[in-house]
Amino acid sequence: MANKQIRVGLLGFGTVGRGTWQALEMNRAGIAASTGLDVRIEKILVRDPDRDRGVALPAGILTRDPEEILSDPSIDIVAEVLGGVEPAGSYMLRALTEKKHVVTANKAAVAARFRELRDAAAANRVLLRCEACVAGGIPILNAITTALRSNRILSVKGIVNGTTNYILTQMAAEGLSYGEALRAAQEKGFAEADPTDDVEGIDAANKLSILLALAFGADVPPGDIPTQGIAGVTADQIRAAGERGHAIKLVAGAEWTDQGLRCKVGLEELPLSHPLAGVHNEFNAVFVEGNAVGELMFYGKGAGALPTGSAVLGDIIGIGEAIAGKERTA
Amino acid sequence: MANKQIRVGLLGFGTVGRGTWQALEMNRAGIAASTGLDVRIEKILVRDPDRDRGVALPAGILTRDPEEILSDPSIDIVAEVLGGVEPAGSYMLRALTEKKHVVTANKAAVAARFRELRDAAAANRVLLRCEACVAGGIPILNAITTALRSNRILSVKGIVNGTTNYILTQMAAEGLSYGEALRAAQEKGFAEADPTDDVEGIDAANKLSILLALAFGADVPPGDIPTQGIAGVTADQIRAAGERGHAIKLVAGAEWTDQGLRCKVGLEELPLSHPLAGVHNEFNAVFVEGNAVGELMFYGKGAGALPTGSAVLGDIIGIGEAIAGKERTA
Repeated sequence: MANKQIRVGLLGFGTVGRGTWQALEMNRAGIAASTGLDVRIEKILVRDPDRDRGVALPAGILTRDPEEILSDPSIDIVAEVLGGVEPAGSYMLRALTEKKHVVTANKAAVAARFRELRDAAAANRVLLRCEACVAGGIPILNAITTALRSNRILSVKGIVNGTTNYILTQMAAEGLSYGEALRAAQEKGFAEADPTDDVEGIDAANKLSILLALAFGADVPPGDIPTQGIAGVTADQIRAAGERGHAIKLVAGAEWTDQGLRCKVGLEELPLSHPLAGVHNEFNAVFVEGNAVGELMFYGKGAGALPTGSAVLGDIIGIGEAIAGKERTA
Repeated sequence: MANKQIRVGLLGFGTVGRGTWQALEMNRAGIAASTGLDVRIEKILVRDPDRDRGVALPAGILTRDPEEILSDPSIDIVAEVLGGVEPAGSYMLRALTEKKHVVTANKAAVAARFRELRDAAAANRVLLRCEACVAGGIPILNAITTALRSNRILSVKGIVNGTTNYILTQMAAEGLSYGEALRAAQEKGFAEADPTDDVEGIDAANKLSILLALAFGADVPPGDIPTQGIAGVTADQIRAAGERGHAIKLVAGAEWTDQGLRCKVGLEELPLSHPLAGVHNEFNAVFVEGNAVGELMFYGKGAGALPTGSAVLGDIIGIGEAIAGKERTA
């Protein structure tokens, strides 16, 4: 049986775009063998097609015109990895309206416009997937939206920002001040030159907004989530918590209470026996409590080209199987 | 839109069967709201329909005749939770041949007859799902067979037997001998009166055989997996490992090496910094390494009525959506 071609247009070729490309190059044959899908990235939107990217690409695959992807009827799936709310959000809405399935790694755009995107996907009977938006390579959204639907989700607690977790880990392990640990994170490439979105908790709030939508069916814009960052934390606080047998972590959390659904992003003191307390450096983890399954934790790399590319490509394959009308039998 | 009825026949009503029933009772409304499925358990096979089970059941739902389920054309899905290789294996093959989808929690039967069951599912174009067979409520098989297909799996290391992990944890924490810890596990209900299958690693080998099939596409019968149990371990060995900064765990592991795929069940000394070293008592965890995503770990309850019922019901819902031809759009 000939493999079913799945034609993908990639919007953006930064870290995540390159990771998606590389994950596909590495695993194309295995994917074809296990799924019967021939996944092809046909076009890639970039700002400057002439720049050297250190990756061998087929001639003519790069374009600076989004219409070459958005209005090409042969493209099945648009994978948006541009980052930023605009123009990424508008491109995704255009793609959905053109009845293309959409995969995205862009938490800011999804959190800002989740309801619109979801409604556009439903209205056009196409699929929208955003696994890479929350905790990078960890397949947490897939678990919540498939295997765990046998549960009512009672609470979610995530370490979903690798930059801040790296800083807090280094402060605890090495006794560094906040400023010293931030500089170390920047030197290692775990923090950007302007770390505002990470250290003020904005990135974590975007991710929590997406978790709230998918785990609890709640539409809470990130701006409505009480959000505290890590800039105020001192080495003394972290040392004192350690002496009490606790670790200080930046937690994006939501839970059902007697007063309804509560959510926030902020520093929490977790006992060292809590599974999240052992999540160090740039690693992410999401702790989920379901009313049947009890406590679960999902742990892995929350960022980086290949881990995030793994999530984008996983979503592409899942949609590809839906397009092909296939379901693995066993 | 009326909800799509999904009619389930349950083979067995022991711990897992009751957990499946309870998870559905607790979450029926939420499942209908999020999936549009009206999941109904129509018949339950038991040995003695007259025994009091402490659960309120509709009149006439219990039967001692498997044919009332296996040859009823109105049953869509057979959920097999009997345990033991036979007659469970034959019932599953019958159900598949009758073009019923099959969900099972029975690792011994699946490990013993995986190839036959898989081929029967493919030949009859029905689905076979066995999430509950490995690590109970942890949705590890779902992750491996959906989201992680963007990877080549390089290695899997699982703490997949709660009985032995409880015994090893108690020996380490309380300095108990093997015999004392085994008795404590039996008193807590974490070990059976005859603990052979657990303490000799047979249960873990069954689970590893299933992981090998789904993660590596390898058909390795459990009897071909080099298997060592925990009965030989002493409190001294565990204490000495602890002094070296290590924990001794019963690990079911498989990895690609230069000599091909290697697998075994046996005791391993893990550095305390390894995520699996922090998995205590009756908890399970599976550590997976993919060539794109890197290291992931999935942690949760590997046994118990509701956690295992959560996995069985999750598989039922997944198949229900395939029957209904639905795919959530976002």
